[in-house]
Amino acid sequence: MEDKIKTFSQFGDAGHGGVTRYTLSPEDNLAREEFKKRMEAIGAVIEVDDLANMYATLPGSDSEAKRIVMASHTDSVKNGGNYDGILGVMSAMEVLETVTNQNIPHKHPLTAMIWTNEEGSLYPPALMVSGIVCYDYLPDAVKSKFKHEDMMASINVLDKETSFGEALDASGYKGDAAYRLSPDTYAAMFEIHVEQGPILEDAGNDVGVVDCVLGMFNYRLRFYGQTVHAGTFPMPKRQDALWAASQALCYLHEKIDKLEYSDLVYTTGEIECHPNVHTCVPDYVDFCIDSRHESAEVLEKVLAIVKSCADKEWAGCRCKVDKMWNRDTVYWDKTLVKYIKESAEKSGVKHQVLHSGAGHDAQFASYMLPTSMIFVQSKDGLSHCEPEYSSPEQCTQGATVMLNAVLKVDAE
Amino acid sequence: MEDKIKTFSQFGDAGHGGVTRYTLSPEDNLAREEFKKRMEAIGAVIEVDDLANMYATLPGSDSEAKRIVMASHTDSVKNGGNYDGILGVMSAMEVLETVTNQNIPHKHPLTAMIWTNEEGSLYPPALMVSGIVCYDYLPDAVKSKFKHEDMMASINVLDKETSFGEALDASGYKGDAAYRLSPDTYAAMFEIHVEQGPILEDAGNDVGVVDCVLGMFNYRLRFYGQTVHAGTFPMPKRQDALWAASQALCYLHEKIDKLEYSDLVYTTGEIECHPNVHTCVPDYVDFCIDSRHESAEVLEKVLAIVKSCADKEWAGCRCKVDKMWNRDTVYWDKTLVKYIKESAEKSGVKHQVLHSGAGHDAQFASYMLPTSMIFVQSKDGLSHCEPEYSSPEQCTQGATVMLNAVLKVDAE
Repeated sequence: MEDKIKTFSQFGDAGHGGVTRYTLSPEDNLAREEFKKRMEAIGAVIEVDDLANMYATLPGSDSEAKRIVMASHTDSVKNGGNYDGILGVMSAMEVLETVTNQNIPHKHPLTAMIWTNEEGSLYPPALMVSGIVCYDYLPDAVKSKFKHEDMMASINVLDKETSFGEALDASGYKGDAAYRLSPDTYAAMFEIHVEQGPILEDAGNDVGVVDCVLGMFNYRLRFYGQTVHAGTFPMPKRQDALWAASQALCYLHEKIDKLEYSDLVYTTGEIECHPNVHTCVPDYVDFCIDSRHESAEVLEKVLAIVKSCADKEWAGCRCKVDKMWNRDTVYWDKTLVKYIKESAEKSGVKHQVLHSGAGHDAQFASYMLPTSMIFVQSKDGLSHCEPEYSSPEQCTQGATVMLNAVLKVDAE
Repeated sequence: MEDKIKTFSQFGDAGHGGVTRYTLSPEDNLAREEFKKRMEAIGAVIEVDDLANMYATLPGSDSEAKRIVMASHTDSVKNGGNYDGILGVMSAMEVLETVTNQNIPHKHPLTAMIWTNEEGSLYPPALMVSGIVCYDYLPDAVKSKFKHEDMMASINVLDKETSFGEALDASGYKGDAAYRLSPDTYAAMFEIHVEQGPILEDAGNDVGVVDCVLGMFNYRLRFYGQTVHAGTFPMPKRQDALWAASQALCYLHEKIDKLEYSDLVYTTGEIECHPNVHTCVPDYVDFCIDSRHESAEVLEKVLAIVKSCADKEWAGCRCKVDKMWNRDTVYWDKTLVKYIKESAEKSGVKHQVLHSGAGHDAQFASYMLPTSMIFVQSKDGLSHCEPEYSSPEQCTQGATVMLNAVLKVDAE
């Protein structure tokens, strides 16, 4: 595992401890080549589907059995770390290598998989490719929020110099749609990921048994004022949209904190201000609020507070509250979660059950296949940044837990 | 005056009621040509200095007397209105035309002047050219804030496709430094400008007798937190820089409003947030505060509140308060102010004394020459935007007040 971390950290090394490895970039393709080389070295068969998802499969003893897949992504955000995504791929490789090297018998074929464009850094949205692959299996409520035609259209959007479609054509990794992940060929999916939070570290645990991806909503609060000159316009007549937004942001914290749900999170991470000039009173400000919790009822209470902002006038400004998107809590397959937990217990790995606050390709896959996730401790809870760190020991523990859970599925 | 407003509004007409007329642009050069044509038509002599400032002078009966100048600018902000700047130039032309057409005797030569690059829209800073022309006369305290070498250097900064220096060379308006505004040649300066605030309109007055440009400061408050994932990081451990900044902004309003100075203005017009991504807790936010008042003592009290923000922790974030710039109140020449007031009274123009909250080229000129300003009512207090409006009658009243004040100086 140490060798893998060292090797893959070179692909897109940004020179200060992390990587910038956009999907299908030359750096990403180096990671894909390394994956191919290492997997072929243990006799795995490489398949690539039409969306550049890569599959390395070790045959099992039962030629009729469906595959068990361990998947994650090789792409990163700008100046991301050496663990988010790639750890899941390295762990899947580790499992296949261990099975091969130790001649561990298994009925089912075992597959290590790379998802394309999980982050959506160059080609939004995030989870684009898993959304397309799993689309037919999504419930209507999810389909209506995440439309297939929008996803397909986004392939050809010129967001940077090239569209995702062009990058796909140019990459040499556009394979055959017949290889796509499907319930006809696959029996179950596992994904290892870094926690991206401090819960495991604070509790002194190395591995997390993930039971669900939290439900969430994202709303935008918009404030409409009037631009006037900073030096010449008396205070009482002003309609200052930034003063309005700041008051509303304080109000949200005050009211939501009073709900006293210790496991609720909410974030106002993005703000826009117009004209954003030091000599002008702002006439328009918006900010977003993202809130996540397992319980739909709790999220409803938070949402009621958010929506109530539109009923008030803030510093003379009108407020409008717009829904951006939401998702319900996605529960992992209960049997797989049980296997992961038993596996962690059996291996003596310090672990606990927790939720995933972040979204992952596994959440779309879960509508198609029994799916579950394993978290590895993130130092200081940091992710999507260069100081991202999990120790080689913790990474190996995660892979060990996954191996044993895979073997439990295999033995079913 | 109506014809002038109609004509000059065509130069840079942005198609929805206002103009975009950057300094030395083709649009600005049309305005300059029109100025030259109209002034030559009444026998004025045109001079252009090395910074493209234009001077149209009618000789007076006393060949030894210094000139009396009426100056403003032809350039606008992006999507500005038809009055800011250009009204002062049109009014100066109106005065010279009236003097010529009505054969009004005058000892002193009378000059209508165009300042180059007042707005600094393409080539910051604003007031660049008047700062350079008047530099030797500025008090040390102002010089230290507004350094000549910085101004000269800014001429060659490539802010857009061309530097100011290149635009100057290409404009055909780079004349002779010997023509620069100077106390050797000029006895007094007047500037007519739109009010840019609602005070005259609210009081039912058409013209303002300006006694000073308000003192001001601009500080930047910076908040340092930690970026973590919106979905995975528990609330109590967060250091959210936007939540910190919002609290501080609310605190500033609360504390400053308690000072209860009705004529104080302060503005938080600009905010930056990093990384400004909806799924990340912001790790850095800054905003600026601009405050203006006649009294240095009042500004000191406001500044003490601003600085006190650095003594507190805000939402777990450290706060730093940095001075950007400040200026002391600049008083206009008392004799000129008196003449303007007497002139308004004599002409039966509804007027009042007020301060200028905004900066103008006249503030630098005032260190070199006796200087004063006249304001014309701004409808709804709006400026630097397309709906800017002053009626032709109000504009004419302003010019009449200036004419009579100029004749008072002439009769001295």
